[in-house]
Amino acid sequence: MQNGILPFNYNHMSYKSLDTSPRILLGPGPSDMHPRVYKALSTHMIGHLDPEFVDIMDEVKQMVQATFQTQNKLSFVVSAPGSAGMETCLVNLIEPGDEVVICQHGVFGGRMADIADRAGATVHKVVQEWGKPVDPAAVKKVLENCNPKLVAIVHAETSTGVRQPLEEIGQMVRDKGSLFVVDAVTSYCGIDLRVDDWGIDAIYTGTQKCLSAPPGLSPVSFSDRAVEVLDARKTKVQSWFLDLSLVKNYWAGAKRAYHHTAPISQIFALREAYRLVLEEGLEARFQRHQETHEHLRDGLQDLGFTYLVDEAYRLPMLNAVYLPDGVEELPLRKQLLHEYNIEVGGGLGDFAGKLWRIGLMGHSCDKNHVNMLLSALKEIM
Amino acid sequence: MQNGILPFNYNHMSYKSLDTSPRILLGPGPSDMHPRVYKALSTHMIGHLDPEFVDIMDEVKQMVQATFQTQNKLSFVVSAPGSAGMETCLVNLIEPGDEVVICQHGVFGGRMADIADRAGATVHKVVQEWGKPVDPAAVKKVLENCNPKLVAIVHAETSTGVRQPLEEIGQMVRDKGSLFVVDAVTSYCGIDLRVDDWGIDAIYTGTQKCLSAPPGLSPVSFSDRAVEVLDARKTKVQSWFLDLSLVKNYWAGAKRAYHHTAPISQIFALREAYRLVLEEGLEARFQRHQETHEHLRDGLQDLGFTYLVDEAYRLPMLNAVYLPDGVEELPLRKQLLHEYNIEVGGGLGDFAGKLWRIGLMGHSCDKNHVNMLLSALKEIM
Repeated sequence: MQNGILPFNYNHMSYKSLDTSPRILLGPGPSDMHPRVYKALSTHMIGHLDPEFVDIMDEVKQMVQATFQTQNKLSFVVSAPGSAGMETCLVNLIEPGDEVVICQHGVFGGRMADIADRAGATVHKVVQEWGKPVDPAAVKKVLENCNPKLVAIVHAETSTGVRQPLEEIGQMVRDKGSLFVVDAVTSYCGIDLRVDDWGIDAIYTGTQKCLSAPPGLSPVSFSDRAVEVLDARKTKVQSWFLDLSLVKNYWAGAKRAYHHTAPISQIFALREAYRLVLEEGLEARFQRHQETHEHLRDGLQDLGFTYLVDEAYRLPMLNAVYLPDGVEELPLRKQLLHEYNIEVGGGLGDFAGKLWRIGLMGHSCDKNHVNMLLSALKEIM
Repeated sequence: MQNGILPFNYNHMSYKSLDTSPRILLGPGPSDMHPRVYKALSTHMIGHLDPEFVDIMDEVKQMVQATFQTQNKLSFVVSAPGSAGMETCLVNLIEPGDEVVICQHGVFGGRMADIADRAGATVHKVVQEWGKPVDPAAVKKVLENCNPKLVAIVHAETSTGVRQPLEEIGQMVRDKGSLFVVDAVTSYCGIDLRVDDWGIDAIYTGTQKCLSAPPGLSPVSFSDRAVEVLDARKTKVQSWFLDLSLVKNYWAGAKRAYHHTAPISQIFALREAYRLVLEEGLEARFQRHQETHEHLRDGLQDLGFTYLVDEAYRLPMLNAVYLPDGVEELPLRKQLLHEYNIEVGGGLGDFAGKLWRIGLMGHSCDKNHVNMLLSALKEIM
């Protein structure tokens, strides 16, 4: 290293070649990736305006539509993680002074309320106890006393493992003339999710859960009704990076106008993860998640674990469980990680230190993994 | 594919296995990646809160400091492309009603002004003709008539190939008591850039230029003076995703509080790209960029190309050149891409259709590549 060129005593040789442990990822995401996705990641780099890359973007758009079960023309991938997808949906649809309704039954509903507030909305909350789904009657009551531009709700609360039924609430929102915004980060490609049939106007998700692509991207989709609202905005979206009036010209415009440099390697991997989903078929994939979940559930209950969520509303891919009496969560979780290379998640927010979140997502959702986890727990406990 | 599960006639078999052409990337970015970076991309996935990943984040932070030549504690990587890094710097430092000065001598200065305006700033512009650096005297004049919170300028305008000298303007900004914000997307790791010595308070860059990592991330750094301004904000940053008061707890906080899921595979690749930079050494890398540029320059001039920018202000990694008289740019550029697999860039903004931007960035910056390009041009022209 040349003298003086670096600002402090610095020895680059201290950085060893990268070497990660062969973890089995059974936490709340990221999930394990299929070998084909690893290979796709290291596909030879091409330019973001190369005709070959434009074709790949078109294919990925179709794959976003297929997996969201929608014909929405404005379906694409935000070049940033799921929380940026959340922000994209909210800040593009909200203008300062708008009323919005946010359903909050975990960490991520709270995050939506925070973002809506920052965008200048008057936020009406429908708050539900963590671990239960939002009650449609509670939404109905709030809707009677306000006139919201949108109603937002989380389909699969990653902090609690609750599956939120959407159809009844979606119908209410439509009857009210509001837009229906859904967080599908953890449900996407793991349980049924019908954007068109359920009248969802704006939806975002992540890539590192049941899709089993690398983290860092957020597929989104907007209905024609939502696009009309976008087009009728009186104020500029405060974020240039997330402004759909600009981004859509890159992903969907006839001229494919340069907006930012797409995360090309990530898009390669995403495309391969989508191919795997479509080869398996959505129904078969949903069934695999349900069956693997039941296998895990039976084994955990035998060991004395108990579920936070009532059976009717449990997510198959996110199992929030209390540990058997007298078992400390952190030492056990560390032992699993360091002695067995198995990652499970701790509690988030109100549940930190109180429960585990065991993920069965995408390529991680496998009976062999369940057996490994249960066997390890039996050996330790 | 199960009947009814997909919303339209859809045949997944139409998506072939991914296969890109072996392009040589001599455009304005992304650049070619070293084989070690491809390998690092497909490193086995681990969780974003895994102790191994936390260690990797710490190493990457040190590498960000080393390459920015700074000791700034708040140095990290935004989980989104360079334009999101731009937005991070501006929206965190600006509050509604603040005065700012934006220097604009190309597309990216204009983008900064747009973002500052959306954040509620009163924007004073120092506009320079495209292809020339901003004149310190013009900055001085504007500074005499306003009291800006920050002055922002592009170090290497990717749209014009101009190298902007920073020291004199930086001194003026410091004397005025304003913060000095610098866009280093194209200069970073290709020409000298001294954050501490030059009094830069906030800086952002991209990964896909002279660093030759995959696109999609934005290394940033903030001086202690900038952090004081962040800490003294009276209003919330409108963007939750880019709010440094939250992000810094994930990258730098003692508890490493979860904020979003980091783009793990990208960080793996970034770390390897940094190792390559540090093994080469910054001075040697800058010299390689300069020498390769001179080799290209001589060859292009022999062929009748002429430079937009005066020699004293030319960037080695971004050669903005007019084509010889009578040569149409688009057909020639397409021929290079399709017959030789060589990508060069067209003009951007005012220069669209008028000139080429030939990049020599990072791993792409190689005498063999220059010889390939010059030989191909000789054969075609």
